[in-house]
Amino acid sequence: MLNVAIIGSSGYTGAELARILCNHPDVRLTAATSRQYAGQPLAHVFPHLRKKTDLICENFTTEELGARADLFFTAVPHQTAMAIVPDLLAAGKKVVDLSADFRLRDVAVYEQWYQKHSAAELLKEAIYGLPELYRQQIRNSRLVANPGCYPTSIILGLAPLLKADAIDPRSIIADSKSGASGAGRVAQVGSLYCEVTDGFRAYKVGGTHRHVPEIEQEINTFLQEPVQISFTPHLLPISRGILSTIYAQLKPGFNQADVSLLYEKMYSQEPFIRLLPENTFPATQYVRGSNFCDLGFKIDSRTGRIIILSAIDNIVKGAAGQAVQNMNLMCDFAETAGLETAPFFP
Amino acid sequence: MLNVAIIGSSGYTGAELARILCNHPDVRLTAATSRQYAGQPLAHVFPHLRKKTDLICENFTTEELGARADLFFTAVPHQTAMAIVPDLLAAGKKVVDLSADFRLRDVAVYEQWYQKHSAAELLKEAIYGLPELYRQQIRNSRLVANPGCYPTSIILGLAPLLKADAIDPRSIIADSKSGASGAGRVAQVGSLYCEVTDGFRAYKVGGTHRHVPEIEQEINTFLQEPVQISFTPHLLPISRGILSTIYAQLKPGFNQADVSLLYEKMYSQEPFIRLLPENTFPATQYVRGSNFCDLGFKIDSRTGRIIILSAIDNIVKGAAGQAVQNMNLMCDFAETAGLETAPFFP
Amino acid sequence: MLNVAIIGSSGYTGAELARILCNHPDVRLTAATSRQYAGQPLAHVFPHLRKKTDLICENFTTEELGARADLFFTAVPHQTAMAIVPDLLAAGKKVVDLSADFRLRDVAVYEQWYQKHSAAELLKEAIYGLPELYRQQIRNSRLVANPGCYPTSIILGLAPLLKADAIDPRSIIADSKSGASGAGRVAQVGSLYCEVTDGFRAYKVGGTHRHVPEIEQEINTFLQEPVQISFTPHLLPISRGILSTIYAQLKPGFNQADVSLLYEKMYSQEPFIRLLPENTFPATQYVRGSNFCDLGFKIDSRTGRIIILSAIDNIVKGAAGQAVQNMNLMCDFAETAGLETAPFFP
Amino acid sequence: MLNVAIIGSSGYTGAELARILCNHPDVRLTAATSRQYAGQPLAHVFPHLRKKTDLICENFTTEELGARADLFFTAVPHQTAMAIVPDLLAAGKKVVDLSADFRLRDVAVYEQWYQKHSAAELLKEAIYGLPELYRQQIRNSRLVANPGCYPTSIILGLAPLLKADAIDPRSIIADSKSGASGAGRVAQVGSLYCEVTDGFRAYKVGGTHRHVPEIEQEINTFLQEPVQISFTPHLLPISRGILSTIYAQLKPGFNQADVSLLYEKMYSQEPFIRLLPENTFPATQYVRGSNFCDLGFKIDSRTGRIIILSAIDNIVKGAAGQAVQNMNLMCDFAETAGLETAPFFP
Repeated sequence: MLNVAIIGSSGYTGAELARILCNHPDVRLTAATSRQYAGQPLAHVFPHLRKKTDLICENFTTEELGARADLFFTAVPHQTAMAIVPDLLAAGKKVVDLSADFRLRDVAVYEQWYQKHSAAELLKEAIYGLPELYRQQIRNSRLVANPGCYPTSIILGLAPLLKADAIDPRSIIADSKSGASGAGRVAQVGSLYCEVTDGFRAYKVGGTHRHVPEIEQEINTFLQEPVQISFTPHLLPISRGILSTIYAQLKPGFNQADVSLLYEKMYSQEPFIRLLPENTFPATQYVRGSNFCDLGFKIDSRTGRIIILSAIDNIVKGAAGQAVQNMNLMCDFAETAGLETAPFFP
Repeated sequence: MLNVAIIGSSGYTGAELARILCNHPDVRLTAATSRQYAGQPLAHVFPHLRKKTDLICENFTTEELGARADLFFTAVPHQTAMAIVPDLLAAGKKVVDLSADFRLRDVAVYEQWYQKHSAAELLKEAIYGLPELYRQQIRNSRLVANPGCYPTSIILGLAPLLKADAIDPRSIIADSKSGASGAGRVAQVGSLYCEVTDGFRAYKVGGTHRHVPEIEQEINTFLQEPVQISFTPHLLPISRGILSTIYAQLKPGFNQADVSLLYEKMYSQEPFIRLLPENTFPATQYVRGSNFCDLGFKIDSRTGRIIILSAIDNIVKGAAGQAVQNMNLMCDFAETAGLETAPFFP
Repeated sequence: MLNVAIIGSSGYTGAELARILCNHPDVRLTAATSRQYAGQPLAHVFPHLRKKTDLICENFTTEELGARADLFFTAVPHQTAMAIVPDLLAAGKKVVDLSADFRLRDVAVYEQWYQKHSAAELLKEAIYGLPELYRQQIRNSRLVANPGCYPTSIILGLAPLLKADAIDPRSIIADSKSGASGAGRVAQVGSLYCEVTDGFRAYKVGGTHRHVPEIEQEINTFLQEPVQISFTPHLLPISRGILSTIYAQLKPGFNQADVSLLYEKMYSQEPFIRLLPENTFPATQYVRGSNFCDLGFKIDSRTGRIIILSAIDNIVKGAAGQAVQNMNLMCDFAETAGLETAPFFP
Repeated sequence: MLNVAIIGSSGYTGAELARILCNHPDVRLTAATSRQYAGQPLAHVFPHLRKKTDLICENFTTEELGARADLFFTAVPHQTAMAIVPDLLAAGKKVVDLSADFRLRDVAVYEQWYQKHSAAELLKEAIYGLPELYRQQIRNSRLVANPGCYPTSIILGLAPLLKADAIDPRSIIADSKSGASGAGRVAQVGSLYCEVTDGFRAYKVGGTHRHVPEIEQEINTFLQEPVQISFTPHLLPISRGILSTIYAQLKPGFNQADVSLLYEKMYSQEPFIRLLPENTFPATQYVRGSNFCDLGFKIDSRTGRIIILSAIDNIVKGAAGQAVQNMNLMCDFAETAGLETAPFFP
């Protein structure tokens, strides 16, 4: 049994990590930090976890933490993560960081979209934790940068097409819709029930969301020449789930069967990717609570475009579940350990 | 007081027509037909209308109907409408048809997307009931084809740009999201609460939705050469509301201020269009229950695209409210009569 | 046209007052105060009100306010109201107070459930603003204490039975369920979308909610000997609406027809009460957005209990709508002026 | 590995059984029947089960079925179950019946509330499958009648008080609220998204719901003299979950601590009961997706009543989960096998 700890356990991602880890066959959750709730049982903060964990939220120094676990999930805001992670690594620990701090390989890009980076030397070492693209590197890594939720859904949808040079990358438009848990467990008027329910809106319109550089970084690994893409996030009145509707100009010579083959070639052995049959499209409610990414597509012969639909649970495959998948790889556990639960419907 | 009737009053659109008309200062609702509920008070079928209307649902022949009103709203499925409307017109009545039967001017296009047309001679006469584009023709018409919900949101969003030749029309992608009332009051598993709530999905992916030819017809009125566009509808877990996120390549030489001016020039006097300030974007919950169309846009200088956001209530501006606005024009009432209610939030 | 003002316009009740008043035929909304949003257009704070009002939120002294209107709606927290209302009255203004400060006639009871009262001398004068019980007094009043949302639903449900001595008052149990807007537009974790949606809970269990004394005060006006009742509020995942399920032991000799008659006798002329037919029961979605109170009941002959169901929109009949109804009475407007909108469904 | 089958797999309960069983360590799901979907993969009917099960829905005769499994879950409507179960038992199979057909021990009561019983001889043998009350009998049974959802929540809430003679049983009122999955996956207007969302209503008011005799049967096992109780079910706009608010007159001499002790004495060793601390109350969202029943209570000293709050997931502890718990007992598996998943929040 590996001892693991969650740094930042009072958000929805922290809670979901605790929920998954308390049933994981190979680990023992030994610590959960929270400044705000220090001293309180985690199951008071999140009453759904009653009888599943006795952990008390604590407010540790990094040194103290080191003694408590061998692998750490840092589920804290960006900039906070970069202050903690170097010490953990120095103490010989493994880290799956769920913030944005180690996702961008180019420090200049990071500093343009976020702020100054205080641990830039780790950017080269950190592995972008998308197992479908970087499984081997993750296995050998001590620092995994867990991908953002939107990027996970978009990159998984595009990778087979980009790899096969099947689309014009400059034509990519990702219209993504996310559930409200993506905004975090933060007391703000815009996230109140009455403001979100029975409504729908876009935000960060015009390529201004911080996931843009992350998406482009991964798209550009497939290209000779870097491109910039369009990305519009929207807020859905659901708790969990992201659906990305992705448009691109299909290159001549690819039909439905060809494209299906590209997806099967890349994903047929993937434990958490489900390729849908022709004319079947994903829905967030069918991946809810699971680590699955459901993918479907359609070629619109009238316009020459392909439309790819990609659905994940933003807190699972988009955050906590993928983090556990990464841990499983880093620690040589079964890749699906702790992540077997079927999606939850209705 | 004008006598008006609703043909097909047992759907959500029929109910909304009744709701608006029972408070309209210039009309008297004198008949509501329903095969299924014939003999029952409309307020039994729709208990929210108790104390607002005493009408009994009836199952009329068209001749009987003629004696009951001077203007008719036909809120019946396509193909049913074309069987009723000619007789009503022959009897000297005015008609606002909420079906798709008279929206497409080209009978060949209609028959390609729907089925054989039995009243094709009326297609030339029918006016497409989007007052912001066809106000004068609507005033002089006896048959108005009330636009589809998705087309209303998309065409209103694009018209100022198309008129000014500000975008490349072949690049248009409309990613639209609609509330569940759009599927009608039909007992089917896919529309059950448990299937829709806390979920999100696309449908009719790849340019196969019947609103495609309607959208293209209106776009092409602005163009020398017809184009085909991409349109993807999605199902939102909300009752009412459509948000369309529309992408197009902006032509060189247009900046934020230029585009704002285009919208203001076309819409500043429109009673039901609200142009949002820069960096403010519409949300369906702010138009709920009203006849407003809220419009915002953003230029993404990284990709050269403009993203237009357009929000309506699909049952009001997308159906019953726009139908009443059309009636107001056809009958020389104040254009906003019966439609003054502020949106309903939260 | 009467000039009216809203003190405290940044909450859901303030917004709903503005929504109703901007369409009211007899009044002009001349001022809206908000400390937090002073200087901002009310339509920025509540974008659904765009094009319906140009008011700028202001932060007034009470003296300045006096010059702006003749009647004031105080939609501020308790304790704040008692500091403002005396000055407004002294300046010759009329006041509809939506706080709890003037609802309880007995200062000792008020101070037991709230805190010290600084304007206790007004308690005798203030009229409890339930028009169905106190219409005449409201007409002649300059200070109306607008009832709480739960009490409105419960008292209207019980009054005909209490008046006729048809139930054992000690047996009354009111199990009430309210939408989330009742918690106000306050940034707190418990009111976040993700905490409320797809869930249900009771709160203030065991007779500890501050509406208890208000309910008992009005019940006891019908009785020789005061009673104490059971009241349990619950939080529904809906924006608007209260449904109260009220249980009481029916006295011998009353059957379904007798009880129906009691309700009809008291309410048949009431513009905002809708009595449902036998075996039909109210639902919050049928009163949504309206000032209606829907009432139904059923006698359970197995247990000798009567179960009364009472539904209102908590922000309308439970707050802003009833306040406007009270203003209409105080100012000799038509009682239904501004409140004619049919409920909003779906 | 035990072979098990689901008879009636196309409803929400059938789907949840499949979801749980496909991860159960001790069983193999070998058959799933559905008349409507015969020939289709279960994962087409319920796309959330893709990659979790390859089962094809079949339409079996009972004899054919016998060859396929050793234990059967009958998730079919009442009256259908009584036609299948005797043959299965005769073939030496074990049965967990999720219909109402074997829950009532008195055939006269069954026939009063349902219809004629064709297998009344089994009523004496069938064990009411509430493990917290009948664990030993369930272990030794070949036919378990899985309890109704409402009765589960109410009986678990009342049992410790009834056992200790702490309440007046004639005073019991159970005001219960259920999510929409309780109405089944049936295409009917009343269950449509637009009819249920953002709304709330009671139904079967006045002791007319078929769960009444089941609740009373179990209450009366604790009493010398049978009583009749009040029960009002309501429809919540949530998918899953029941919260029952139960009122009863507390007998003199019981305080908060005494009552706590009664609950602890009966339930402290129960794997699926969670007793909440004083002044903490259950919420459906904290048991969602789990087999837990959360219980809290409060004594209202003003009225002498105790209010008990009981929350379950109606498809899990109220149906499929409890059925699996019963199977675990009947087959000597760990009682919690397959039911370890933590509740799912948000």
